[in-house]
Amino acid sequence: MTGTGIRVDRVEAGPWTVPVTGAITRAPAVTQEEVRRHNLGVLLSLLHVRGPASRAELTAVSGLNRSTVRALITELADAGLVREAAPVGRGGAGRPSILVEPRSEAVWALAVDIGVEHLSAARVGLGGVVLDRRESRQPRDDGAVVQVLDRVRRLVEPLLAAADTDPVGIGVAVPGMVGGPGQLVRLAPNLGWVDVPLGLLLGAQLRSTLPVAVGNEGDLGVMAEHLRGVAADASDAIFLTGEVGLGAGVIVGGRPLTGAGGYAGEVGHMSVNPGAGRLCTCGRRGCWETEVGADAMLRALGAPAGSTAEEILAATSDDSRSAKTAVRRIGRWLGVGVANLVNLFNPEVVVFGGLTRTLFPVLEQYVRAELSAALTAPRDQVRLELPALGADSSLLGAAELAFAPLLGDPLGGRVALPDPA
Amino acid sequence: MTGTGIRVDRVEAGPWTVPVTGAITRAPAVTQEEVRRHNLGVLLSLLHVRGPASRAELTAVSGLNRSTVRALITELADAGLVREAAPVGRGGAGRPSILVEPRSEAVWALAVDIGVEHLSAARVGLGGVVLDRRESRQPRDDGAVVQVLDRVRRLVEPLLAAADTDPVGIGVAVPGMVGGPGQLVRLAPNLGWVDVPLGLLLGAQLRSTLPVAVGNEGDLGVMAEHLRGVAADASDAIFLTGEVGLGAGVIVGGRPLTGAGGYAGEVGHMSVNPGAGRLCTCGRRGCWETEVGADAMLRALGAPAGSTAEEILAATSDDSRSAKTAVRRIGRWLGVGVANLVNLFNPEVVVFGGLTRTLFPVLEQYVRAELSAALTAPRDQVRLELPALGADSSLLGAAELAFAPLLGDPLGGRVALPDPA
Repeated sequence: MTGTGIRVDRVEAGPWTVPVTGAITRAPAVTQEEVRRHNLGVLLSLLHVRGPASRAELTAVSGLNRSTVRALITELADAGLVREAAPVGRGGAGRPSILVEPRSEAVWALAVDIGVEHLSAARVGLGGVVLDRRESRQPRDDGAVVQVLDRVRRLVEPLLAAADTDPVGIGVAVPGMVGGPGQLVRLAPNLGWVDVPLGLLLGAQLRSTLPVAVGNEGDLGVMAEHLRGVAADASDAIFLTGEVGLGAGVIVGGRPLTGAGGYAGEVGHMSVNPGAGRLCTCGRRGCWETEVGADAMLRALGAPAGSTAEEILAATSDDSRSAKTAVRRIGRWLGVGVANLVNLFNPEVVVFGGLTRTLFPVLEQYVRAELSAALTAPRDQVRLELPALGADSSLLGAAELAFAPLLGDPLGGRVALPDPA
Repeated sequence: MTGTGIRVDRVEAGPWTVPVTGAITRAPAVTQEEVRRHNLGVLLSLLHVRGPASRAELTAVSGLNRSTVRALITELADAGLVREAAPVGRGGAGRPSILVEPRSEAVWALAVDIGVEHLSAARVGLGGVVLDRRESRQPRDDGAVVQVLDRVRRLVEPLLAAADTDPVGIGVAVPGMVGGPGQLVRLAPNLGWVDVPLGLLLGAQLRSTLPVAVGNEGDLGVMAEHLRGVAADASDAIFLTGEVGLGAGVIVGGRPLTGAGGYAGEVGHMSVNPGAGRLCTCGRRGCWETEVGADAMLRALGAPAGSTAEEILAATSDDSRSAKTAVRRIGRWLGVGVANLVNLFNPEVVVFGGLTRTLFPVLEQYVRAELSAALTAPRDQVRLELPALGADSSLLGAAELAFAPLLGDPLGGRVALPDPA
């Protein structure tokens, strides 16, 4: 106990929140060391999310005073996490201010996105910069865990070999429900996985002692778009994803929707056609993903099994009446589900990722037609958008998972890197 | 500025939250007066939500020290909000401790629940005690605002006349979307209301200068069940409500789901049967409420229009094959929607309020059968429950709206009441 003060716990200020907790008590204040570590994390996070900034900007945004910011930046620089550099290409009058920037090339996370039909991996530098990226096709119906792990290893090894430094952590996105110990994938129906301790297995496969953090591809996609993409200013957002299936990540009131056990957001298994729909892998009939997933599109368009998103898109431009009917049908079903989500969540933005990203240009008019039948108030507030991060929303979200411990405690157990400058 | 200290803003600790705000700064601490007012609110809220408690219990729960609790309780007692009394009927050894209890009979809110087919109103004492309660039928298709306001006035006047003190505020639950200035009901389709400034109009109708707070019946229902009912320990909960339509209130991560504009939770307009369903008042086809609302039940059971919930329930016990088919059909559609919500929100509890409360006993088996097809992980975590507060969840939630300003600042502008004891 190095000081005393009045500790204020913030009390929720919702329209009906009753402040049954949050008494203001004279309690031991946090220690100077805790304050310092916390504020190091705040500054590094600001640089990571908002990009290079002058000390003056950091002072203004953080609310810290100038001398504190100077001291903390020096510590971060000594640890090899940031550097100070004159800005390049900034015209205009006056002396250019010196910018603090994250050392993206030296401080990086290994991100992996495991899809049902694709794999991608990247070295992502502090600040969210993709330094190096590889991808490969994942043969459908060959998603056995050992096969996938081996493919990931082969994709990742050249990335690791080309890097001068070790990653700060490993993050993985998967099309399934994640929870429990060992970074368990509880259920990934389209890979056929049940209770796979992916974090442990992948660490072993890569012979790495680094922590492996695993997240759902939808949750990670909406996180990345919320940090740096089209949902950056949105308190309420939905990110659709998936290739064969249809998943989502949802942000409500600025926070991720998790549900009681971390399994919320399973939009693909919203039954929209229980009377006449097809049987879903989950056992129900007429789930949204059976109407708008890849299989539904392949069937409707008469395209061969295993077609890529681009091949499916090409098939939609066929001039035949059957192709036009198929596109209209898929677009309408996509719109039915989107309108449901708009009525349920009243989001500011729905982001079309995964397969819907590729097909959005041809489906948009039908989606908007269905959406026009949603309730007026939420409909008027929603934007329909493509991901600002292209195909990499979930991959970049996986990198954030890996960065999280560093951003929370930048110097925790960290050995200073040699400064190459 | 009466003191300085280290102010700690709590930083979200979600699995991937980046602490871009929340620097710890040496800032002016809150004043002693602010601390006192805040802590008065904390103690009064504890008594309101948890009921009578000894000073020792209040000290333990609030984290405040004994002398502070004693001083604050004295202030609350002097203002006529609480009293100290020996416990009644507490057996056992030892000296019974003196209990602090809210003065429910003197400090009360006027609560009104406006339904499509019913009206109810109550004097609700501090602590959530119903002191006096009236209800009346609301003729269907006679929901013109002036008619409803007049009916509310006639219901409320005897309640006010029988009371010795004035209410602390007025709270109203409505089956519609609420938002904007004047406590506007943006849309209540089953009443035919669009942009009705209900708060202003009802205040004028009752010739009251008290603030009138208006909320959605689902939001208020889940709030009440979360404070004192079957969702009391649940971080994630759904409360179904409605007579003609179907609404809901949703709690996610311990907080109300509002959406970007306060319109989230419109479960009744989740389209579950867009191909073959009936046209809904919202303009879409096959909305959940067209399959399980009162009209669907009346049609399926061949019951006369305007039947009460109890009459609908009676019709379900008819021994005919058609009645059995109707019950099975309605139960299944109810289950389809509940399974969707379980997959989307992963709640700990779904509470069946409104019309579904009356019919739950006969529909439960079909709901559970449909739910068994939901995804395993969220299904295993959910309880299906009847409201602990009976038909009054939304009414009691409306009282909470009215109590909120008092609980936030118990002595704000308040004249001490004479103590009748």
